[in-house]
Amino acid sequence: MADTTRDALKGTVGFIGLGIMGLPMTRNLLRAGFPVVAWNRTASKVALAEGAEPAASPAAVASRADIVVVCVTASADVEAVIEGDAGVLHGLRPNAIVIDMSTISPDVTKRLAARVRGVGCDYLDAPVSGGEQGAINGTLSIMVGGEAATLERARPVFEAMGQRITHCGPVGAGQTVKLCNQIAVCLNNLAMAEALVFCQQSGVDPSVMIEAISAGAAGSWQISNLASKIVARDFAPGFKVSLQQKDLRLALEAADTVHAPLAGVSLVHQLLGVVEGRHGGDVGTQALVRALEALTGVEVGSTAR
Amino acid sequence: MADTTRDALKGTVGFIGLGIMGLPMTRNLLRAGFPVVAWNRTASKVALAEGAEPAASPAAVASRADIVVVCVTASADVEAVIEGDAGVLHGLRPNAIVIDMSTISPDVTKRLAARVRGVGCDYLDAPVSGGEQGAINGTLSIMVGGEAATLERARPVFEAMGQRITHCGPVGAGQTVKLCNQIAVCLNNLAMAEALVFCQQSGVDPSVMIEAISAGAAGSWQISNLASKIVARDFAPGFKVSLQQKDLRLALEAADTVHAPLAGVSLVHQLLGVVEGRHGGDVGTQALVRALEALTGVEVGSTAR
Repeated sequence: MADTTRDALKGTVGFIGLGIMGLPMTRNLLRAGFPVVAWNRTASKVALAEGAEPAASPAAVASRADIVVVCVTASADVEAVIEGDAGVLHGLRPNAIVIDMSTISPDVTKRLAARVRGVGCDYLDAPVSGGEQGAINGTLSIMVGGEAATLERARPVFEAMGQRITHCGPVGAGQTVKLCNQIAVCLNNLAMAEALVFCQQSGVDPSVMIEAISAGAAGSWQISNLASKIVARDFAPGFKVSLQQKDLRLALEAADTVHAPLAGVSLVHQLLGVVEGRHGGDVGTQALVRALEALTGVEVGSTAR
Repeated sequence: MADTTRDALKGTVGFIGLGIMGLPMTRNLLRAGFPVVAWNRTASKVALAEGAEPAASPAAVASRADIVVVCVTASADVEAVIEGDAGVLHGLRPNAIVIDMSTISPDVTKRLAARVRGVGCDYLDAPVSGGEQGAINGTLSIMVGGEAATLERARPVFEAMGQRITHCGPVGAGQTVKLCNQIAVCLNNLAMAEALVFCQQSGVDPSVMIEAISAGAAGSWQISNLASKIVARDFAPGFKVSLQQKDLRLALEAADTVHAPLAGVSLVHQLLGVVEGRHGGDVGTQALVRALEALTGVEVGSTAR
């Protein structure tokens, strides 16, 4: 009777975690026509996603959904909402899909996926990049680990939230690729910071330097988008240092497990620790430069030398 | 009688150093209509720039030129052709401009500029980026230090060789900005290498990772242009490790002088030293990854794990 393809596409989505990322992602699911049932640790936030039905617990979300999306902060948070009392595992319907869009440990991911599969459901890890703006605009990059067939079943849900959807490999591969993303991001950031501080110390205008080198082999997203903010002393977060640090901890832990030598990442992690200590974790990642400025005693962009 | 503007624009250019970069730069000057008189340590090379007149020494070049371009390797080479016996200083005409397009020490640059000014001439440091291909195509980025009025007099010469011509500040500022370029390049390279090795060790296909992350905040010229070469085990040089090392030595020496903390650059310099020891200095800079592979014992892109 019903158009089953359409039914499958617009099955109810459960959404757990309506934070800076999860709230706009939920709104985009509603806009795309998905019924959404939602739970958030602070329950009042669910009302901000107009049209989403509130549920009393992660288990209650799962009992009413075909696909359950989790978008929280750390490995322990994902474990709590999936395995905890009144967690997703207590409510999952047969053949449901659990999609974790948080950035967490690849090893924890593999363990949770095994538990979800143990109750006859499927699991995808699907961390994102693109930040709050990407979440609002529905232009997130989504890095998916899990079975290709499961990804195909979930694709309409992903397409409501993101643009570049990459199947990275089996469960955990999405998290691994996300950590690769953070590894590259944090070292491109160090590249920018060392170039700027060297330039400043040498008495050359950093703005001129940025203009001269950013279009060539030294170019990066960071230098194009964040270097001029540093010169303008704008440390408002695109991405917060505290969250970058959480991700670098994951990368360094995973590197310890797989025996990958991340000497550069380790250095950046330590320098960002200095930034957290002096300026707090809510500043943007471009504040990495402030760890180097703490050493030189001179701010990039200052004219008095 | 004569059109003096035109005469000024097409004054004779002296060119010293017809190597991988200098030879195609000389050809572009000839193509643009400049008379060129040239000297090279290996004299036979001058004949490769058809139309250039050979001279017996750097001094002989200077005695016949309005603008003298130097394009050699290291600080000591520039000192030799400018200050040495039969060096440029022994032949310079009044009001001539000496343009050093080598990448050398900002401090040596300032000293040489003072000597050239001492005989009534002008000096510009004008190192380039863009590599051999940029030299052949006349699309080099040129980072110029010196007086703005001198740059304007020399602009037609620069325009014959490059595209993006940036006035970076007083004498030495071109070298400083070029070193900033190399600082950023070498750390973006480390970003790529650590991400690739972590990905490989985690059992995820590096090509999928590159595709997933290169368009976002992790993006860089390096990851777009060199990461796939690493997976294909192509270590042919765009830019050689030995020359990158020479430039990093300059950056670290200058950082020592101006008190800039280049901890990341120092790490890359040491890792590239390992690459030089194992694979020689003629490989491309993307071979940085091989220092990390020496630690893991696993090549990026290999399927046997």
